[in-house]
Amino acid sequence: MTAPNRATLWGRILADELAKGGLEAVCIAPGSRSTPLTVAFADHPDIDVYSHLDERSAAYFALGRARRTGEPTALVCTSGTAAANFHPAVMEADQARVPLLVLTADRPPELRDSGANQTVDQVKLYGDAVRWYTELPEPEADERKVRSLRTSAARALSETTGVPPGPVHCNCPFRKPLEPIEVPGDVPDSFADTLAAVGRDGPFVETADGTQTLTHDDHQKLLQALEAADRPLIVAGPADPTACSSLEPDAVTDLADRLGVPILADPLSGLRYGPHVEESDTPRTVYGGYDAYIDALPAPDVVLRFGASPTSKRLRHWLQDADARQFLIDPAGAWREATFTATDLLAAEPGTVVEGVLEALDKRERAESAAHASTDDWRAQFDTAERCRWEIRDEALTADALASQPFEGAILASAISNAPDPATVFVSNSMPIRDADRFGRPRGADLTVLANRGASGIDGIASTALGAGSATDDPLVLVTGDLAFYHDSNGLLAVERCDVDATIVLLDNDGGGIFHKLQIEEFDPPFTQQFKTPHGLEFEALGDLYGLAFERVAPADFEAAYRDSLETPGTQVLAVDFDSEASHRRREALADQVSAAVATALEDDAVDRSD
Amino acid sequence: MTAPNRATLWGRILADELAKGGLEAVCIAPGSRSTPLTVAFADHPDIDVYSHLDERSAAYFALGRARRTGEPTALVCTSGTAAANFHPAVMEADQARVPLLVLTADRPPELRDSGANQTVDQVKLYGDAVRWYTELPEPEADERKVRSLRTSAARALSETTGVPPGPVHCNCPFRKPLEPIEVPGDVPDSFADTLAAVGRDGPFVETADGTQTLTHDDHQKLLQALEAADRPLIVAGPADPTACSSLEPDAVTDLADRLGVPILADPLSGLRYGPHVEESDTPRTVYGGYDAYIDALPAPDVVLRFGASPTSKRLRHWLQDADARQFLIDPAGAWREATFTATDLLAAEPGTVVEGVLEALDKRERAESAAHASTDDWRAQFDTAERCRWEIRDEALTADALASQPFEGAILASAISNAPDPATVFVSNSMPIRDADRFGRPRGADLTVLANRGASGIDGIASTALGAGSATDDPLVLVTGDLAFYHDSNGLLAVERCDVDATIVLLDNDGGGIFHKLQIEEFDPPFTQQFKTPHGLEFEALGDLYGLAFERVAPADFEAAYRDSLETPGTQVLAVDFDSEASHRRREALADQVSAAVATALEDDAVDRSD
Repeated sequence: MTAPNRATLWGRILADELAKGGLEAVCIAPGSRSTPLTVAFADHPDIDVYSHLDERSAAYFALGRARRTGEPTALVCTSGTAAANFHPAVMEADQARVPLLVLTADRPPELRDSGANQTVDQVKLYGDAVRWYTELPEPEADERKVRSLRTSAARALSETTGVPPGPVHCNCPFRKPLEPIEVPGDVPDSFADTLAAVGRDGPFVETADGTQTLTHDDHQKLLQALEAADRPLIVAGPADPTACSSLEPDAVTDLADRLGVPILADPLSGLRYGPHVEESDTPRTVYGGYDAYIDALPAPDVVLRFGASPTSKRLRHWLQDADARQFLIDPAGAWREATFTATDLLAAEPGTVVEGVLEALDKRERAESAAHASTDDWRAQFDTAERCRWEIRDEALTADALASQPFEGAILASAISNAPDPATVFVSNSMPIRDADRFGRPRGADLTVLANRGASGIDGIASTALGAGSATDDPLVLVTGDLAFYHDSNGLLAVERCDVDATIVLLDNDGGGIFHKLQIEEFDPPFTQQFKTPHGLEFEALGDLYGLAFERVAPADFEAAYRDSLETPGTQVLAVDFDSEASHRRREALADQVSAAVATALEDDAVDRSD
Repeated sequence: MTAPNRATLWGRILADELAKGGLEAVCIAPGSRSTPLTVAFADHPDIDVYSHLDERSAAYFALGRARRTGEPTALVCTSGTAAANFHPAVMEADQARVPLLVLTADRPPELRDSGANQTVDQVKLYGDAVRWYTELPEPEADERKVRSLRTSAARALSETTGVPPGPVHCNCPFRKPLEPIEVPGDVPDSFADTLAAVGRDGPFVETADGTQTLTHDDHQKLLQALEAADRPLIVAGPADPTACSSLEPDAVTDLADRLGVPILADPLSGLRYGPHVEESDTPRTVYGGYDAYIDALPAPDVVLRFGASPTSKRLRHWLQDADARQFLIDPAGAWREATFTATDLLAAEPGTVVEGVLEALDKRERAESAAHASTDDWRAQFDTAERCRWEIRDEALTADALASQPFEGAILASAISNAPDPATVFVSNSMPIRDADRFGRPRGADLTVLANRGASGIDGIASTALGAGSATDDPLVLVTGDLAFYHDSNGLLAVERCDVDATIVLLDNDGGGIFHKLQIEEFDPPFTQQFKTPHGLEFEALGDLYGLAFERVAPADFEAAYRDSLETPGTQVLAVDFDSEASHRRREALADQVSAAVATALEDDAVDRSD
């Protein structure tokens, strides 16, 4: 490895080392100070470069890609406010444990706080939101420095996928010349053959991350607690990116089946969709409709929780009110449980816990016959409730029902039910993710359902989705509200620039429909002007700007248009207009209807059993 | 002051106190956690509320308003990534000394780091970029707490306009209920009449900021240095917001006239435009064309510098190469001088220094006759060079010349020369500000020329301009490149939502024209794909989306279209297409032409004098 000058050398070594460490993609926003990085990445055969013009969108695109793959994606920007534009996505990556390597170019140290142009304080710019911050030394063809550069690059990459995964920030000062122009003597010929210059065959340094594992004794105790329970439950919240987690859906469902434990699977858990899910009118093990009926069921007595806090507020409150022993399992030992009712934290890889309990179960079953409390009644109640829930949903989804009583949840229901197998379905925050939780029925299809639920912002949605879509050949579906669509309209540029095809479902209710859920609705003003904020935007123009096919479809015609879009190359926006208030009332009415029906059905079941 | 619950009380007290302290405007992005703030501001009769849907644009709008007025503007957002979206504008406000009061709603403290939704670490979110960070206590109708709230509010506002002015961050935790609903006993009846509840007639506490002033002795020494100089110079860089500075253009030009000192006035200095500027073919005192000819002049021996680092790189380098005594005058005592050639820092209000030197001059002139070195020759050289410079520019601006050799600088020249009196002219970073510096001739008109030169990003440009426009009745002109126009396309929503009329001049060269200035141009790839980044966007669609009249005009027709737009209500976008490379070559050729002409003219003058 050699170079015409030290800055170029620095960029090349960094790109070389990151590629050797497995980095496959980088999102770059144009700038001058970052030239050595940009040139090196653009030139590297093993790293895909995605060029973006808005740093905020670039960062979310990288986040989406890393979220989908669980593999680190890098980000490059020039100095100044460009780096601050990365901040929202860095915050989401922190909260959602997404591996992101942020490389910010900087002026050389002597220009800081000197009034120099485009020079700000970038040191620890993202505060505690990053797993590691490091400032690279100034470029120089010095063996120790370059070995440190290789080590830092390898370490930075490794930190992004540590426990927990997350963002890492390397601030990279460069001085001119930044371009690959010859500077005689800057990189001596003798340097080319050094270990520092050449590097190793693989990464310069490798980190073997140990896995936090409980003891056999811990696993046995957990098994005993589950077996002794009358109403045991597994709650799977939003999962960390797949490659960062060892949790196997088959193992979890196997454990749940053998112990008779229902699994309440969040749409983002990785457990609501997939080949491990049995599709039948009598669901088994994996339940998805609980938000509609959970209040009607008795409280659990032992709960095993994976992942982040569940999307369903009703579920969270129901768990809060339960006088149950609640085990949180988290590889990073984080207490992600804001109702403060959990009793035990198991700081271990969820996959190892499941395997460990299964092993303990195998051992015990070989030694003695099963002795656990029967949970048949408990599971039967979930079966009844779940069946009821989806029957009522399906009635609300018929073309006739939709023509007379359209509501946004029907679109989420259809978008998920009719998504191809496999597919990536990205769901925006605010109402879409709540509707996906309520109306997205478990399926045996290999759907990767994603959302930005770390910090739950409505920013960067299109970019995150497109970034996720860029990572695989799976068809990509994005379901978004109009405010989120507006917020990251710049992100749509990636459709063409980064060559991602998508079906974008735009629920257009002209403002913030979610506020109808809140009591502020009763205070107008300021409700309409400051909260609901109708904008009257006709988004067809964004279709024109970014070369997307744009179609407005009636709720009752959505399914057909959606299927068409999925079979059509290119990106289509299917906009469905809703009155958010009416949609909200319909949502409430359906919830009441399910509650009543489930209560009756459970009562009937109880009568049957007592007969 | 009373309220149905403590959160509402908190919002009302805060708004009341800020209004009493003089706050006139707040930019609000919708959200739930910020409800108590939003409701209180929307309800306050003395505070204008600007509602924005993208927090990044909201923050830049507030920045623009505060930059134009020098008065603090407040910002409100909900918790989570919303607050991180403010970061770029906070960074610019820090660097450019713009008073911005950032109010971020937060979850209550017990939910932090608990996995609760939309809950991130907002403590000291903007690091050292703010003048003051404070976390408000949790709302409660407690007298001491509420007095502390009033004091914090008044202090926070005052800190934004301290020395130097800048952003202040108040993190505001709220718990439910957030809406103004009755919570019996939450705010006791007895509380209503307390001093804490009622406040005072004016602000609860007032800060009288002292002014840093040099001694008479210091002023005399400075006067002596200027008088003893053969080639004294005043360099006025980009100014702090007007209301935050005591510098009177008349006083500066008076001083310069009496001492025979040329003033090199940056377009952002507040000195290149205004009634103090004499318009004639023989300019006096205020020079604006120096970027084109400064290299041809002898070095100054004493330099007095106000404001931030000048836009002109040539000027900076020329000053760096001068073996001169350079006095920096800065009220905050900052060494804003990245060439490290300044010798003296005068930490005092520039206005007081000018007045002090004028007083010393008055005293001396009463006591004895003027004894300073004649600077007639020195000034004559500037006169000659300046005349030459604008003659050549004017030849390049004729319709014929533009039809055959269009270049972007011509648009900046025209936009400034033909701007109404008064007007606010906002100029984007990258090439437009450089062209404004080169081609914007000094005028006697009351033009407020602004740019985001703190951190010099190309983000938030439309929003900053529209925010500046919202602050006065002056006509608003924005000159922007296409990348900046794309970057903050969301900001255009403010045209209608915030009712701002503007003439937006879009220099569309399909990508980053500035990179043609850099040596990276010679390396393609990656030049085109990663640096110039042509996007092919047809921005007419943004006109459709945001209800703006959009017109493409040829360079030679620009002036007429521009004048029309200025006389037409509503907002028009005048897009002028350029080939950035050709435009850059023309810019270079004109620079060479001026250099040669100035050298010849100066030689002729020297011959004349020696005759």
